[in-house]
Amino acid sequence: MDFDLDLSIDVLERTPSTLQSLLGGLTDPWVRGTEGPDTFSPFDVVGHLIDGEETDWMPRARIILARGESLRFEPYDRFRHRSRNVNRRLQSLLDEFARLRAENLDVLRSWQLTTRELDLPGEHPALGPVTLRQLLAAWVVHDLGHIAQAVRVMAKQYGGEVGPWVPYMPVLTDHLVPRS
Amino acid sequence: MDFDLDLSIDVLERTPSTLQSLLGGLTDPWVRGTEGPDTFSPFDVVGHLIDGEETDWMPRARIILARGESLRFEPYDRFRHRSRNVNRRLQSLLDEFARLRAENLDVLRSWQLTTRELDLPGEHPALGPVTLRQLLAAWVVHDLGHIAQAVRVMAKQYGGEVGPWVPYMPVLTDHLVPRS
Repeated sequence: MDFDLDLSIDVLERTPSTLQSLLGGLTDPWVRGTEGPDTFSPFDVVGHLIDGEETDWMPRARIILARGESLRFEPYDRFRHRSRNVNRRLQSLLDEFARLRAENLDVLRSWQLTTRELDLPGEHPALGPVTLRQLLAAWVVHDLGHIAQAVRVMAKQYGGEVGPWVPYMPVLTDHLVPRS
Repeated sequence: MDFDLDLSIDVLERTPSTLQSLLGGLTDPWVRGTEGPDTFSPFDVVGHLIDGEETDWMPRARIILARGESLRFEPYDRFRHRSRNVNRRLQSLLDEFARLRAENLDVLRSWQLTTRELDLPGEHPALGPVTLRQLLAAWVVHDLGHIAQAVRVMAKQYGGEVGPWVPYMPVLTDHLVPRS
Protein backbone atom coordinates (compact mmCIF):
# COMPACT_ATOMS: atom_id res chain seq x y z
CA MET A 1 0.00 0.00 0.00
CA ASP A 2 1.41 3.38 -1.05
CA PHE A 3 1.26 6.39 1.24
CA ASP A 4 -1.94 8.42 0.90
CA LEU A 5 -2.57 11.51 3.03
CA ASP A 6 -6.35 11.10 3.28
CA LEU A 7 -6.09 7.39 4.12
CA SER A 8 -3.48 8.25 6.77
CA ILE A 9 -5.68 10.90 8.38
CA ASP A 10 -8.56 8.42 8.32
CA VAL A 11 -6.55 6.15 10.64
CA LEU A 12 -5.03 8.91 12.77
CA GLU A 13 -8.38 10.49 13.53
CA ARG A 14 -9.94 7.30 14.87
CA THR A 15 -7.20 6.40 17.38
CA PRO A 16 -8.72 8.47 20.23
CA SER A 17 -12.15 6.83 19.88
CA THR A 18 -10.59 3.38 19.51
CA LEU A 19 -8.70 3.88 22.78
CA GLN A 20 -11.82 5.32 24.42
CA SER A 21 -13.79 2.20 23.44
CA LEU A 22 -11.00 -0.11 24.54
CA LEU A 23 -10.05 1.59 27.81
CA GLY A 24 -12.63 4.17 28.88
CA GLY A 25 -14.07 3.24 32.29
CA LEU A 26 -12.00 0.06 32.53
CA THR A 27 -10.72 -0.95 35.97
CA ASP A 28 -7.13 -0.49 37.12
CA PRO A 29 -6.08 -4.17 36.89
CA TRP A 30 -6.52 -3.89 33.11
CA VAL A 31 -5.37 -0.28 32.74
CA ARG A 32 -2.30 -0.31 34.96
CA GLY A 33 -0.84 -3.75 34.18
CA THR A 34 2.48 -3.94 32.31
CA GLU A 35 4.70 -6.58 30.68
CA GLY A 36 7.43 -6.02 33.27
CA PRO A 37 9.71 -3.27 34.61
CA ASP A 38 10.14 -0.24 32.32
CA THR A 39 7.36 -1.34 29.97
CA PHE A 40 4.19 0.58 29.21
CA SER A 41 0.77 -0.06 30.73
CA PRO A 42 -2.28 0.96 28.66
CA PHE A 43 -2.31 4.13 30.83
CA ASP A 44 1.30 4.80 29.82
CA VAL A 45 0.43 4.22 26.15
CA VAL A 46 -2.12 7.04 26.23
CA GLY A 47 0.42 9.31 27.98
CA HIS A 48 3.05 8.42 25.39
CA LEU A 49 0.65 9.24 22.54
CA ILE A 50 -0.04 12.64 24.16
CA ASP A 51 3.72 13.25 24.24
CA GLY A 52 3.78 12.43 20.54
CA GLU A 53 1.12 15.07 19.83
CA GLU A 54 3.00 17.71 21.80
CA THR A 55 6.65 16.98 21.03
CA ASP A 56 7.03 14.60 18.08
CA TRP A 57 5.01 14.37 14.89
CA MET A 58 3.66 17.85 14.21
CA PRO A 59 6.68 19.71 15.64
CA ARG A 60 8.87 17.63 13.32
CA ALA A 61 6.59 18.26 10.35
CA ARG A 62 6.89 22.00 11.09
CA ILE A 63 10.70 21.74 11.07
CA ILE A 64 10.55 20.11 7.63
CA LEU A 65 8.07 22.61 6.20
CA ALA A 66 10.01 25.61 7.57
CA ARG A 67 12.88 24.64 5.22
CA GLY A 68 15.27 26.36 7.61
CA GLU A 69 19.01 25.97 8.08
CA SER A 70 18.74 22.99 10.41
CA LEU A 71 16.36 20.17 9.53
CA ARG A 72 17.37 18.17 12.59
CA PHE A 73 14.52 17.03 14.88
CA GLU A 74 14.65 17.29 18.67
CA PRO A 75 15.10 13.85 20.28
CA TYR A 76 11.84 12.37 21.53
CA ASP A 77 11.69 11.56 25.27
CA ARG A 78 9.85 8.24 25.43
CA PHE A 79 9.39 8.57 29.19
CA ARG A 80 8.24 12.20 29.42
CA HIS A 81 4.74 11.01 30.32
CA ARG A 82 5.98 9.21 33.44
CA SER A 83 6.58 12.40 35.41
CA ARG A 84 4.03 14.50 33.49
CA ASN A 85 1.01 12.36 34.31
CA VAL A 86 1.54 11.44 37.97
CA ASN A 87 -1.86 11.66 39.73
CA ARG A 88 -3.74 11.98 36.42
CA ARG A 89 -6.78 9.79 35.73
CA LEU A 90 -7.05 7.73 32.57
CA GLN A 91 -10.21 9.49 31.39
CA SER A 92 -8.48 12.84 31.69
CA LEU A 93 -5.64 11.55 29.50
CA LEU A 94 -8.06 10.08 26.95
CA ASP A 95 -9.88 13.42 26.72
CA GLU A 96 -6.63 15.36 26.42
CA PHE A 97 -5.34 13.02 23.71
CA ALA A 98 -8.58 13.36 21.72
CA ARG A 99 -8.39 17.18 21.91
CA LEU A 100 -4.70 17.37 20.92
CA ARG A 101 -5.12 14.90 18.08
CA ALA A 102 -8.14 16.75 16.66
CA GLU A 103 -6.24 20.06 16.80
CA ASN A 104 -3.20 18.56 15.11
CA LEU A 105 -5.24 16.97 12.33
CA ASP A 106 -7.04 20.28 11.72
CA VAL A 107 -3.65 21.89 11.17
CA LEU A 108 -2.40 19.00 9.03
CA ARG A 109 -5.48 19.21 6.80
CA SER A 110 -5.15 23.00 6.54
CA TRP A 111 -1.66 22.61 5.04
CA GLN A 112 -3.13 20.87 1.96
CA LEU A 113 0.23 19.18 1.41
CA THR A 114 1.38 18.60 -2.15
CA THR A 115 3.39 15.64 -3.42
CA ARG A 116 6.41 17.94 -3.59
CA GLU A 117 6.01 18.97 0.03
CA LEU A 118 5.65 15.34 1.07
CA ASP A 119 9.06 14.74 -0.50
CA LEU A 120 10.74 17.47 1.61
CA PRO A 121 13.58 16.27 3.85
CA GLY A 122 14.14 16.30 7.59
CA GLU A 123 16.84 14.79 9.75
CA HIS A 124 16.02 12.33 12.49
CA PRO A 125 18.57 12.62 15.34
CA ALA A 126 19.30 8.88 15.28
CA LEU A 127 17.91 7.55 11.98
CA GLY A 128 19.25 10.23 9.63
CA PRO A 129 17.52 11.61 6.55
CA VAL A 130 13.75 11.13 6.29
CA THR A 131 10.97 12.73 4.25
CA LEU A 132 7.75 14.35 5.44
CA ARG A 133 5.89 11.45 3.79
CA GLN A 134 7.88 8.92 5.85
CA LEU A 135 7.28 10.96 9.01
CA LEU A 136 3.50 10.92 8.45
CA ALA A 137 3.50 7.20 7.59
CA ALA A 138 5.51 6.56 10.77
CA TRP A 139 2.91 8.51 12.77
CA VAL A 140 0.19 6.13 11.52
CA VAL A 141 2.27 3.02 12.22
CA HIS A 142 3.26 4.39 15.65
CA ASP A 143 -0.42 4.79 16.58
CA LEU A 144 -1.26 1.27 15.44
CA GLY A 145 1.78 -0.22 17.17
CA HIS A 146 0.79 1.33 20.48
CA ILE A 147 -2.84 0.24 20.17
CA ALA A 148 -1.53 -3.28 19.56
CA GLN A 149 0.73 -2.88 22.60
CA ALA A 150 -2.13 -1.78 24.90
CA VAL A 151 -4.22 -4.74 23.77
CA ARG A 152 -1.31 -7.19 24.15
CA VAL A 153 -0.48 -5.93 27.64
CA MET A 154 -4.13 -6.41 28.64
CA ALA A 155 -4.12 -9.95 27.24
CA LYS A 156 -1.00 -10.83 29.20
CA GLN A 157 -2.71 -9.97 32.49
CA TYR A 158 -4.75 -13.17 31.89
CA GLY A 159 -1.75 -15.23 30.76
CA GLY A 160 -1.94 -17.40 33.88
CA GLU A 161 -5.70 -17.95 33.60
CA VAL A 162 -6.17 -19.65 30.24
CA GLY A 163 -4.67 -23.00 31.21
CA PRO A 164 -3.70 -25.12 28.19
CA TRP A 165 -4.81 -22.47 25.66
CA VAL A 166 -1.46 -20.62 25.74
CA PRO A 167 -0.05 -22.16 22.51
CA TYR A 168 -3.24 -21.12 20.66
CA MET A 169 -2.93 -17.51 21.85
CA PRO A 170 0.20 -16.01 20.27
CA VAL A 171 -0.59 -12.60 21.80
CA LEU A 172 0.47 -14.08 25.16
CA THR A 173 3.95 -14.94 23.95
CA ASP A 174 4.62 -11.99 21.64
CA HIS A 175 7.42 -9.78 22.96
CA LEU A 176 8.64 -12.26 25.56
CA VAL A 177 11.51 -9.81 25.96
CA PRO A 178 9.30 -6.76 26.37
CA ARG A 179 10.02 -3.35 24.90
CA SER A 180 8.48 -0.16 26.19
CA MET B 1 -4.25 -10.90 37.61
CA ASP B 2 -6.70 -13.57 38.73
CA PHE B 3 -9.79 -14.44 36.71
CA ASP B 4 -12.83 -12.31 37.56
CA LEU B 5 -16.14 -12.76 35.75
CA ASP B 6 -17.21 -9.10 35.89
CA LEU B 7 -13.80 -7.85 34.74
CA SER B 8 -13.90 -10.38 31.91
CA ILE B 9 -17.33 -9.26 30.75
CA ASP B 10 -16.14 -5.65 30.94
CA VAL B 11 -13.54 -6.45 28.26
CA LEU B 12 -15.76 -8.76 26.19
CA GLU B 13 -18.56 -6.23 25.91
CA ARG B 14 -16.36 -3.48 24.51
CA THR B 15 -14.79 -5.46 21.67
CA PRO B 16 -17.57 -4.63 19.16
CA SER B 17 -17.32 -0.88 19.77
CA THR B 18 -13.51 -1.01 19.71
CA LEU B 19 -13.63 -2.70 16.30
CA GLN B 20 -16.31 -0.27 15.13
CA SER B 21 -14.07 2.68 16.08
CA LEU B 22 -11.02 1.08 14.51
CA LEU B 23 -12.59 -0.21 11.30
CA GLY B 24 -16.06 1.25 10.69
CA GLY B 25 -16.12 3.20 7.44
CA LEU B 26 -12.45 2.53 6.71
CA THR B 27 -11.41 2.01 3.08
CA ASP B 28 -10.62 -1.38 1.59
CA PRO B 29 -6.81 -0.96 1.43
CA TRP B 30 -6.82 -0.95 5.25
CA VAL B 31 -9.65 -3.42 5.75
CA ARG B 32 -8.72 -6.09 3.20
CA GLY B 33 -4.93 -6.15 3.57
CA THR B 34 -3.30 -9.27 5.02
CA GLU B 35 0.14 -10.42 6.20
CA GLY B 36 0.37 -12.94 3.36
CA PRO B 37 -1.46 -15.99 1.99
CA ASP B 38 -3.81 -17.74 4.42
CA THR B 39 -3.59 -14.93 6.99
CA PHE B 40 -6.46 -12.80 8.23
CA SER B 41 -7.32 -9.30 7.06
CA PRO B 42 -9.18 -7.03 9.54
CA PHE B 43 -12.34 -8.07 7.63
CA ASP B 44 -11.48 -11.73 8.27
CA VAL B 45 -10.88 -10.98 11.96
CA VAL B 46 -14.44 -9.71 12.37
CA GLY B 47 -15.77 -12.78 10.54
CA HIS B 48 -13.67 -15.05 12.74
CA LEU B 49 -15.01 -13.38 15.89
CA ILE B 50 -18.57 -13.93 14.61
CA ASP B 51 -17.74 -17.62 14.16
CA GLY B 52 -16.55 -17.63 17.76
CA GLU B 53 -19.90 -16.26 18.96
CA GLU B 54 -21.84 -18.86 16.99
CA THR B 55 -19.71 -21.97 17.30
CA ASP B 56 -17.05 -21.64 20.00
CA TRP B 57 -17.24 -19.93 23.37
CA MET B 58 -20.86 -20.09 24.44
CA PRO B 59 -21.61 -23.48 22.81
CA ARG B 60 -18.61 -24.87 24.72
CA ALA B 61 -19.71 -23.23 27.97
CA ARG B 62 -23.11 -24.88 27.47
CA ILE B 63 -21.46 -28.30 27.04
CA ILE B 64 -19.61 -27.79 30.34
CA LEU B 65 -22.69 -26.58 32.23
CA ALA B 66 -24.87 -29.41 30.87
CA ARG B 67 -22.63 -31.88 32.79
CA GLY B 68 -23.59 -34.55 30.26
CA GLU B 69 -21.91 -37.80 29.37
CA SER B 70 -19.51 -36.21 26.87
CA LEU B 71 -17.71 -33.01 27.82
CA ARG B 72 -15.83 -32.93 24.53
CA PHE B 73 -16.10 -29.72 22.50
CA GLU B 74 -16.72 -29.63 18.75
CA PRO B 75 -13.57 -28.59 16.86
CA TYR B 76 -13.57 -24.92 15.88
CA ASP B 77 -13.29 -24.22 12.14
CA ARG B 78 -10.96 -21.23 11.92
CA PHE B 79 -11.85 -20.65 8.28
CA ARG B 80 -15.65 -20.99 8.46
CA HIS B 81 -15.97 -17.22 7.86
CA ARG B 82 -14.20 -17.44 4.49
CA SER B 83 -17.12 -19.09 2.72
CA ARG B 84 -19.79 -17.71 5.05
CA ASN B 85 -19.06 -14.04 4.41
CA VAL B 86 -18.44 -13.89 0.66
CA ASN B 87 -20.09 -10.71 -0.68
CA ARG B 88 -20.74 -9.34 2.81
CA ARG B 89 -19.78 -5.75 3.67
CA LEU B 90 -17.64 -4.97 6.69
CA GLN B 91 -20.32 -2.82 8.35
CA SER B 92 -22.79 -5.68 8.09
CA LEU B 93 -20.28 -7.96 9.85
CA LEU B 94 -19.55 -5.36 12.55
CA ASP B 95 -23.28 -4.98 13.23
CA GLU B 96 -23.81 -8.75 13.31
CA PHE B 97 -20.88 -9.24 15.69
CA ALA B 98 -22.19 -6.53 18.03
CA ARG B 99 -25.63 -8.17 18.12
CA LEU B 100 -24.33 -11.70 18.69
CA ARG B 101 -21.88 -10.58 21.38
CA ALA B 102 -24.57 -8.62 23.25
CA GLU B 103 -26.92 -11.62 23.15
CA ASN B 104 -24.20 -13.99 24.36
CA LEU B 105 -23.20 -11.70 27.23
CA ASP B 106 -26.85 -11.36 28.28
CA VAL B 107 -27.00 -15.15 28.57
CA LEU B 108 -23.63 -15.35 30.32
CA ARG B 109 -24.73 -12.77 32.91
CA SER B 110 -28.07 -14.55 33.40
CA TRP B 111 -26.24 -17.72 34.46
CA GLN B 112 -24.85 -15.93 37.56
CA LEU B 113 -21.96 -18.40 37.60
CA THR B 114 -20.61 -19.52 40.97
CA THR B 115 -17.00 -20.33 41.76
CA ARG B 116 -17.95 -24.00 41.77
CA GLU B 117 -19.46 -23.77 38.30
CA LEU B 118 -16.36 -21.95 37.03
CA ASP B 119 -14.35 -24.99 38.16
CA LEU B 120 -16.45 -27.41 36.09
CA PRO B 121 -14.54 -29.39 33.45
CA GLY B 122 -14.77 -29.64 29.69
CA GLU B 123 -12.61 -31.37 27.15
CA HIS B 124 -10.95 -29.47 24.35
CA PRO B 125 -10.59 -31.70 21.26
CA ALA B 126 -6.85 -30.94 20.97
CA LEU B 127 -5.78 -29.40 24.28
CA GLY B 128 -7.49 -31.84 26.65
CA PRO B 129 -9.09 -31.01 30.02
CA VAL B 130 -10.02 -27.40 30.66
CA THR B 131 -12.31 -25.60 33.11
CA LEU B 132 -15.15 -23.17 32.41
CA ARG B 133 -12.99 -20.47 34.04
CA GLN B 134 -10.15 -21.16 31.59
CA LEU B 135 -12.60 -21.15 28.68
CA LEU B 136 -13.92 -17.71 29.65
CA ALA B 137 -10.40 -16.33 30.23
CA ALA B 138 -9.40 -17.69 26.80
CA TRP B 139 -12.42 -15.92 25.27
CA VAL B 140 -11.10 -12.58 26.63
CA VAL B 141 -7.53 -13.24 25.46
CA HIS B 142 -8.80 -14.44 22.06
CA ASP B 143 -10.66 -11.12 21.58
CA LEU B 144 -7.61 -9.08 22.54
CA GLY B 145 -5.29 -11.18 20.37
CA HIS B 146 -7.45 -10.62 17.31
CA ILE B 147 -7.79 -6.88 17.94
CA ALA B 148 -3.98 -6.76 18.15
CA GLN B 149 -3.84 -8.78 14.92
CA ALA B 150 -6.18 -6.42 13.04
CA VAL B 151 -4.11 -3.43 14.17
CA ARG B 152 -0.81 -5.13 13.30
CA VAL B 153 -2.05 -6.12 9.84
CA MET B 154 -3.10 -2.51 9.20
CA ALA B 155 0.33 -1.25 10.34
CA LYS B 156 2.09 -3.65 7.98
CA GLN B 157 0.29 -2.15 4.96
CA TYR B 158 2.54 0.91 5.55
CA GLY B 159 5.68 -1.13 6.17
CA GLY B 160 7.25 0.10 2.95
CA GLU B 161 6.38 3.76 3.59
CA VAL B 162 8.14 4.59 6.87
CA GLY B 163 11.69 4.57 5.47
CA PRO B 164 14.33 4.27 8.20
CA TRP B 165 11.75 4.07 11.05
CA VAL B 166 11.30 0.30 10.71
CA PRO B 167 13.60 -0.65 13.66
CA TYR B 168 11.65 1.76 15.92
CA MET B 169 8.31 0.17 14.96
CA PRO B 170 8.30 -3.41 16.29
CA VAL B 171 4.70 -3.88 15.14
CA LEU B 172 6.09 -4.05 11.58
CA THR B 173 8.32 -7.00 12.32
CA ASP B 174 6.10 -8.92 14.75
CA HIS B 175 4.99 -12.25 13.31
CA LEU B 176 7.43 -12.23 10.42
CA VAL B 177 6.21 -15.76 9.90
CA PRO B 178 2.53 -14.89 9.96
CA ARG B 179 -0.18 -16.97 11.60
CA SER B 180 -3.82 -16.67 10.72
